[in-house]
Amino acid sequence: MSAKFNIEDQLTLPLLARSAWLEGEELVILDETRLPWEKSFLRVKDPQGAVAAIKEMKTRAFGQVLVTLYALVLAARQAARLPQEEQLEAFWEQAEKLANPRPTVDFKELIAPVLKMAQDAQCQKKPLDKAIEAGVQGLIDFIQSRRIARCQKAADLIKDGDTVLTHCNVSGEMVIIGELCRKQGKRVSFFATETRPYLQGARLTAWELKEAGFEVTLIPDNAVAKVMTEGKVSLVIVGSDRTAQNGDVANKIGTYQIALVAKEFGIPFYVLAQPSKRTATGADIPIEERDPREVLFFEGQRIAPEGIDAYYPGFDVTPKELISGHLVVERN
Amino acid sequence: MSAKFNIEDQLTLPLLARSAWLEGEELVILDETRLPWEKSFLRVKDPQGAVAAIKEMKTRAFGQVLVTLYALVLAARQAARLPQEEQLEAFWEQAEKLANPRPTVDFKELIAPVLKMAQDAQCQKKPLDKAIEAGVQGLIDFIQSRRIARCQKAADLIKDGDTVLTHCNVSGEMVIIGELCRKQGKRVSFFATETRPYLQGARLTAWELKEAGFEVTLIPDNAVAKVMTEGKVSLVIVGSDRTAQNGDVANKIGTYQIALVAKEFGIPFYVLAQPSKRTATGADIPIEERDPREVLFFEGQRIAPEGIDAYYPGFDVTPKELISGHLVVERN
Repeated sequence: MSAKFNIEDQLTLPLLARSAWLEGEELVILDETRLPWEKSFLRVKDPQGAVAAIKEMKTRAFGQVLVTLYALVLAARQAARLPQEEQLEAFWEQAEKLANPRPTVDFKELIAPVLKMAQDAQCQKKPLDKAIEAGVQGLIDFIQSRRIARCQKAADLIKDGDTVLTHCNVSGEMVIIGELCRKQGKRVSFFATETRPYLQGARLTAWELKEAGFEVTLIPDNAVAKVMTEGKVSLVIVGSDRTAQNGDVANKIGTYQIALVAKEFGIPFYVLAQPSKRTATGADIPIEERDPREVLFFEGQRIAPEGIDAYYPGFDVTPKELISGHLVVERN
Repeated sequence: MSAKFNIEDQLTLPLLARSAWLEGEELVILDETRLPWEKSFLRVKDPQGAVAAIKEMKTRAFGQVLVTLYALVLAARQAARLPQEEQLEAFWEQAEKLANPRPTVDFKELIAPVLKMAQDAQCQKKPLDKAIEAGVQGLIDFIQSRRIARCQKAADLIKDGDTVLTHCNVSGEMVIIGELCRKQGKRVSFFATETRPYLQGARLTAWELKEAGFEVTLIPDNAVAKVMTEGKVSLVIVGSDRTAQNGDVANKIGTYQIALVAKEFGIPFYVLAQPSKRTATGADIPIEERDPREVLFFEGQRIAPEGIDAYYPGFDVTPKELISGHLVVERN
């Protein structure tokens, strides 16, 4: 693991990798819909507020992991004000609200170890709020270290002068990969797809890579095959919203066709993954269908006339056969 | 050929199939950048104005064919005011200006028969303006009838209940295909890709199909593989900005990856084509690179921060192996 990104020094993580935190009684959440124009933050006081921020995609990807886990701390604090015998049930009830804000990411699997922490605290007669706060912070530190370790795996795959094509946004991991390449003395540049309709590629990935001093070129989602024809892409690295045990990967809509095109050109296609213990294959992953208005409007302005239907599946499933490697760090 | 669309009854053609015409001394051009919000028209008086409208993509696809041909009539009228012996050279000089406003479509090949008409008029001592006006209108009528005939070929491929996925916009031909299916008593519905960055799919294709009473669903360019996975697409039909003699097709950026995805799913992929006599293979087709600002801005509003580079190739080349059939109508 890189010294630069060790857990004691988390503030050197890119902003999108540390996009939510607790401040007193509040959970502070970076509003990713306002990036790159402004760094504005929501402040929520309870799990409902956290769920709303996730549903509206104010936070997303790793941000929604941080928000969910910290919201459990808020829930534990609320529960801790109740008589001892009511605390666990009250906590579970709040946790339930955080269990399925969006269907494709498995929030239940994320929450499960925290429910276990609450049970353990109960058995050991420890204060629920303190136990969850310490447990959640430990879990986040662990996940962060695991994310950095898989970035190191990705960086090790990159050769001097390579160009990485990425889709959507992996909450700072592409910047970390670039930084790790720099430490190894390797030059790396990037293609970021726009990632319609939410434009994570334009607003987040291109922005954060540029801010960190990397060469990045934005392309329309339609130009993937073209840049590959031109020999401009060395490898593809994308994230994963859920990885099944067989290796199928649900990720932002458009990932599947990038993988198909990469295969056509013999370009390696890697996924930053964290396999689910509960999901056997891609067919078991529910795909979220977002509101058609997210396609029909751009920043409040209609881009197609009244009466047109739109279909916006938020994710697609890339079959394992198209994936050159899953960049995973197993728990010790 | 369908009676409904015969040449005597051209006003029943969809608007995008008759998007430019002569009115007195002026060439009237539908401003496709303002669709679907308003039907506004440019009026130009000389070839330079026509070239500007094409370069700025105020008109495009079949519209730029109409504009180029009618601009040659304006040029012939200007030339006809000169002494007889200067007319041909003056006409050629004006025609030269229309020969390469954008590189991917072969405007030279389009103009060539009109230059021949001018030469013939000269030899036969016919008035240049009259000869070109009649010749151009005959050529346009011929092209229109050929377009309708290839739409009939497309309609014949469609089965009752089929769903056609299309990309970009083929200047009314998708509407004609739908109408011809209706005449055959077949229900047909459509998926229109958005076609970033110009959004021809959202603004033009979805709009014109909806106006004509067809069921059309707009999808992000990223959702092609997903809708194909779901078995929702029966066949793909796209246009062609230039078709090489070996069958390779240059069309709007994104076409190539749709063809690759269609192949993966065994979905037939057809092209409305008009093979070039001057272009041997796809490798001989120059691909226009558009201004990066067309990706970086949306309706004047930045969508990526300052300092980000973008790359916007306007077209890509789909190799012939991925094409199930070229819907072509040969000259008799």
